[in-house]
Amino acid sequence: MSPCLSYEASATAQTGGKAWKKRLPNNSTLSPVYSSPASGDPMAQAYWQCYPWLVLLCACAWSYPAPMYLGREDVRNCSTNPPHLPVTAVNTTMRLAALRQQMKTWNLSAYIIPDTDAHMSEYIGKHDKRRDWISGFTGSAGTAVVTMTKAAVWTDSRYWTQAERQMDCNWVLHKEVGISPIVKWILAEVPDGENVGFDPFLFSVDSWEYYDRGLQDSNRHLLSVTTNLVDEAWGSERPPVPSQPIYALPKEFTGGTWQEKVSAVRSSMQHHAKTPTGVLLSALDETAWLFNLRSSDIPYNPFFYSYALLTNSSIRLFVNKSRFSLETLQYLNTNCTLPMCVQLEDYSQIRDSVKAYASGNVKILVGVSYTTYGVYEVIPKEKLVTDTYSPVMLIKAVKNSQEQALMKASHVRDAVAVIQYLVWLEKNVPKGTVDEFSGAEYIDELRRKENFSSGPSFETISASGLNAALAHYSPTKELHRKLSTDEMYLVDSGGQYWDGTTDITRTVHWGTPTAYQKEAYTRVLMGNIDLSRLVFPAATSGRVVEAFARRALWEVGLNYGHGTGHGIGNFLCVHEWPVGFQYNNIAMAKGMFTSIEPGYYQDGEFGIRLEDVALVVEAKTKYPGNYLTFELVSFVPYDRNLIDVRLLSPEQLQYLNRYYQTIRETVGPELQRRQLREEFAWLEQHTEPLSAGAPHTTSLTSLWVASALAILSWSS
Amino acid sequence: MSPCLSYEASATAQTGGKAWKKRLPNNSTLSPVYSSPASGDPMAQAYWQCYPWLVLLCACAWSYPAPMYLGREDVRNCSTNPPHLPVTAVNTTMRLAALRQQMKTWNLSAYIIPDTDAHMSEYIGKHDKRRDWISGFTGSAGTAVVTMTKAAVWTDSRYWTQAERQMDCNWVLHKEVGISPIVKWILAEVPDGENVGFDPFLFSVDSWEYYDRGLQDSNRHLLSVTTNLVDEAWGSERPPVPSQPIYALPKEFTGGTWQEKVSAVRSSMQHHAKTPTGVLLSALDETAWLFNLRSSDIPYNPFFYSYALLTNSSIRLFVNKSRFSLETLQYLNTNCTLPMCVQLEDYSQIRDSVKAYASGNVKILVGVSYTTYGVYEVIPKEKLVTDTYSPVMLIKAVKNSQEQALMKASHVRDAVAVIQYLVWLEKNVPKGTVDEFSGAEYIDELRRKENFSSGPSFETISASGLNAALAHYSPTKELHRKLSTDEMYLVDSGGQYWDGTTDITRTVHWGTPTAYQKEAYTRVLMGNIDLSRLVFPAATSGRVVEAFARRALWEVGLNYGHGTGHGIGNFLCVHEWPVGFQYNNIAMAKGMFTSIEPGYYQDGEFGIRLEDVALVVEAKTKYPGNYLTFELVSFVPYDRNLIDVRLLSPEQLQYLNRYYQTIRETVGPELQRRQLREEFAWLEQHTEPLSAGAPHTTSLTSLWVASALAILSWSS
Repeated sequence: MSPCLSYEASATAQTGGKAWKKRLPNNSTLSPVYSSPASGDPMAQAYWQCYPWLVLLCACAWSYPAPMYLGREDVRNCSTNPPHLPVTAVNTTMRLAALRQQMKTWNLSAYIIPDTDAHMSEYIGKHDKRRDWISGFTGSAGTAVVTMTKAAVWTDSRYWTQAERQMDCNWVLHKEVGISPIVKWILAEVPDGENVGFDPFLFSVDSWEYYDRGLQDSNRHLLSVTTNLVDEAWGSERPPVPSQPIYALPKEFTGGTWQEKVSAVRSSMQHHAKTPTGVLLSALDETAWLFNLRSSDIPYNPFFYSYALLTNSSIRLFVNKSRFSLETLQYLNTNCTLPMCVQLEDYSQIRDSVKAYASGNVKILVGVSYTTYGVYEVIPKEKLVTDTYSPVMLIKAVKNSQEQALMKASHVRDAVAVIQYLVWLEKNVPKGTVDEFSGAEYIDELRRKENFSSGPSFETISASGLNAALAHYSPTKELHRKLSTDEMYLVDSGGQYWDGTTDITRTVHWGTPTAYQKEAYTRVLMGNIDLSRLVFPAATSGRVVEAFARRALWEVGLNYGHGTGHGIGNFLCVHEWPVGFQYNNIAMAKGMFTSIEPGYYQDGEFGIRLEDVALVVEAKTKYPGNYLTFELVSFVPYDRNLIDVRLLSPEQLQYLNRYYQTIRETVGPELQRRQLREEFAWLEQHTEPLSAGAPHTTSLTSLWVASALAILSWSS
Repeated sequence: MSPCLSYEASATAQTGGKAWKKRLPNNSTLSPVYSSPASGDPMAQAYWQCYPWLVLLCACAWSYPAPMYLGREDVRNCSTNPPHLPVTAVNTTMRLAALRQQMKTWNLSAYIIPDTDAHMSEYIGKHDKRRDWISGFTGSAGTAVVTMTKAAVWTDSRYWTQAERQMDCNWVLHKEVGISPIVKWILAEVPDGENVGFDPFLFSVDSWEYYDRGLQDSNRHLLSVTTNLVDEAWGSERPPVPSQPIYALPKEFTGGTWQEKVSAVRSSMQHHAKTPTGVLLSALDETAWLFNLRSSDIPYNPFFYSYALLTNSSIRLFVNKSRFSLETLQYLNTNCTLPMCVQLEDYSQIRDSVKAYASGNVKILVGVSYTTYGVYEVIPKEKLVTDTYSPVMLIKAVKNSQEQALMKASHVRDAVAVIQYLVWLEKNVPKGTVDEFSGAEYIDELRRKENFSSGPSFETISASGLNAALAHYSPTKELHRKLSTDEMYLVDSGGQYWDGTTDITRTVHWGTPTAYQKEAYTRVLMGNIDLSRLVFPAATSGRVVEAFARRALWEVGLNYGHGTGHGIGNFLCVHEWPVGFQYNNIAMAKGMFTSIEPGYYQDGEFGIRLEDVALVVEAKTKYPGNYLTFELVSFVPYDRNLIDVRLLSPEQLQYLNRYYQTIRETVGPELQRRQLREEFAWLEQHTEPLSAGAPHTTSLTSLWVASALAILSWSS
């Protein structure tokens, strides 16, 4: 098993990847392996919003020695004179000079540049890619620190080669993860008594605390500077902040009016042990959900830059006001009495407004795991109520019946698109006309044709053969592999629809898979089934049951190095917190949606992942009790060609056939309605009940016949 | 399902029980249910040492309304005039007066009296039962606070009735758990500007921090007073501190010499990221293990009151020196060069000696989860290295091959005692001559007859019928139930032997169990098997796999409200941290021992628990990898009368039969050697391979025969 895919290796590495760092208050990893509580080294940087799950399905620190770049043309070599710089390297000399000029003005000896935005978003806009601009390095995870004489980037193994290709020799690459090595470097580089600056809007409270703790007693001063110095240096070249309209979702696509949601949040505040008078919302999906508003500021996410301060007596939305139509303004502020009118304030006012509100006799609740230090630091400690998640996060996590129905409807249409794609592949791959990129384009196109489509919910992972075993693989127009009947193909994709967000992975083989591939695939399927059909007590944490998705693999010494599932929203984040199977996810409750996605990755050969979205529902148990189970809402059959039915237990087989029956009953009529005859036939064929008993029954029957014949011949 | 046994109810309640509080850094419970990370209210009080697992198997807050004591003779009634006091109530008027006199001297307005000793021990000595003495209430969990005019005890639901029986009307009973309500009460009772005293040797660092945080900014001053005021009031009536000899274990009963262990700990210190110069050992099993010394200061635990300060260059043992024989003194301090000589210092010197050592250029490592504030507070922060567990705890957790062999040997002899007991029960219960208490006495006696016995490792739980569903039930000479063939019987017991500590639970029925009892028993067994046979990656946390012990119960809506297993020592703690399946246990490693003990409890009817001790071993997997599994070292068969074989999967059945084969091969020869013929026959009978296929095979065979006959008759 490759180190990339080994459970242990990935456990170590996950702290490095962006996804693994998101919303993790300490160095806990997302795998069931976690280190002794004795080691309490906090994480590198808390990110928020939807986290880049996908790019990290194999986010691990390969344990082989540092790559030997010497002599390679495509990477820099700073040890020659003159240094060798590939064409992909970015000249950052002027940029650094401009930044250092700013640092001088602010009297800073070092400046820290993280890779996030002011909302700890999973995906960030171009204008927020400050670390990319200053360093040239565009990987999604990595922190830069610039001093007056040096510049350094810290990133994990997934990005080392990319960094060597993109950075010029102004930059040093550090192959470590976490804040600890950065602090160590700062202590070595910054003289006693001098200042280390950072933009507090790009620091989570956790990461600020960790830097602060690392530098305290060192006589280096950590300075919060609200003017972003990279932006100052970037100047007019910096891409503009999005300004497209913000629109209200039609009522039929929401689980309730914004007024109902505001009332629910206020009720939650009143029932909170510390009775906060206001709650500060800084995650972009919080405001989008609360007000039923959407836009497209962030790739793959229908969000808009905003904050909200919801108090007992007022609702304040901080946003670029000019982006609202008159109609939307009316939607927010008509026929209302003051506590139920949305007051619009400019996005840039959030800090001052929170500060002003905090000067009163108030208590402000903050979802501390995803709020930046920029808004946190202006609230006096005694006025602060800190929870991991805001009530909005917790209420949003449990979908009401209307939201559940919306999600299911979007998944039925999504299944049609995926089935169309699989049918198309089955016909075209043998012709040799499909590659990973054209495939990804085609499935995206199929989804776009579906009703209420708002584009993909993340960049489609379309990976053939060995590419499917790679971390964060997505094909490009330039770099992709042809699909063939000789190898396995993995497609992990999803859509944003006005009624729901989808995310599904299927792995297929159109030729003759090896016995090993079939076994691995079947065991991944067994894991999916074992977790999906599990009955567990209400309020169980996903963390303690996710191993059921691994048991069938573990049994033979196989495993996967990523988490087992994540929450998902209604036209919101495809990776919606705080639901899921990870250490810091909240307990499971009826009405939550989560993905279930075990996998197996054979380095250099193939990758398997079977991902479905599941609704948490009440379980009917033989003896009465408050128990839950999952109900899959992804309606696409698995690949029969890869299932070794003999490995399935009778219970697994029964479950699978029942799921197939549900798919038939749910998607079949939709295919018929649309007269997609070929797809309908394909569905019928691929959801035929599977049977393990067949050979067994046959042999018994033949035994019986043979015996009978023997007896007959003997007796006659 | 009764609230007592419901998973959810127990999850809420566990924070209240002593066991559930032990070593838990926050309010996480030991059940797989844990609340949202948002609620970060720290736990009540951190206890240490072996924790009282057994008394808490059903430690839950019954959710029915507060018991109605009115009119009951056996409990106090302080609302009548004069108050009604049962004969069991203790008059504490003089005691409180004496304590308040002390408080006056120290200028304290309140004094907090916890229920632990200076080593956070699971069981505490009589002389440490300060809360018992001052309040009259003898329950194992509960904190008292005394002000100049009031006195109050906080305890959980298990002890409410007991408290009402034992306390006089000087005391108020608070039915809440955790430090939070105590702090609230103190804030209400203690005037602004006044002092709240506590003995820092009875406060874990965590509990101190929580009180401190609760009182900060309140202008009540939390005062650490090293003189224990209850002891002062108790005076000459206080039982003496134990003074029996401390002896060295013979070499053949240890995994290594103390010199080897000291070297291993020093090596671990050198490899520690923060390179401490010394490690402070304050748990009693730390010193017992490190020096291979034992005594009997604590009930059920072969420990002696002590601390150790192990540094790079010295070994200091703080103990009552007069308890060593000349031989033992030589054992510790002969032919040694200074860094390898044990310097004895008086037990009472620990605080001053640590303080003195801390004045040098040193760094002191402290296992912070079980160290008291008394020794912690004298170490300046910059000299402190805090880990959850000391290197001694971590090294001790992994047993070397010699220790593994010793444990197994003790378990073989222990199995002989348990089998003798089960055979004896089978003969005598039908005669109606056995009760829970005489049974407990008999099994304890059988164990005492075994070689190297040093008594029971905890108070035997011997519970018939409905008593087995009760929390912390142990029979007494006065109060017990007769064993009968009409009900189930649960016996949870263990022994201390020089080579190992044992702990095993078996549940039996000598008559005709109901279908429900058989199903519940079989599902508990399935849970035990599913976890025992699980293959999992090295370094997996027990927490993420313990649900395998519950799945078979969950499936039909059943569950149990306690943890699934705990570490166990070599003639040390029967509940040895930090190994186990709980939230704060360390990851599994080859060489660890843990119990596996699912159960099911039907309130008012019966209780089932099947507990085995298992060794963590390497698993041989089809594909190579670093995987582990369990090997049971408890060698007593389960009750065939209660197993519904039809519920077992082929894999479970195969595993069970293989385990029975191992029992035969391991214990059989020992029974033969001792000429225990009856027991040997019993073992052979009870380990006969079980078969599920029988009825199936039979029916097929009969089908075949019938068919053949039919054919014959037809053909002839």
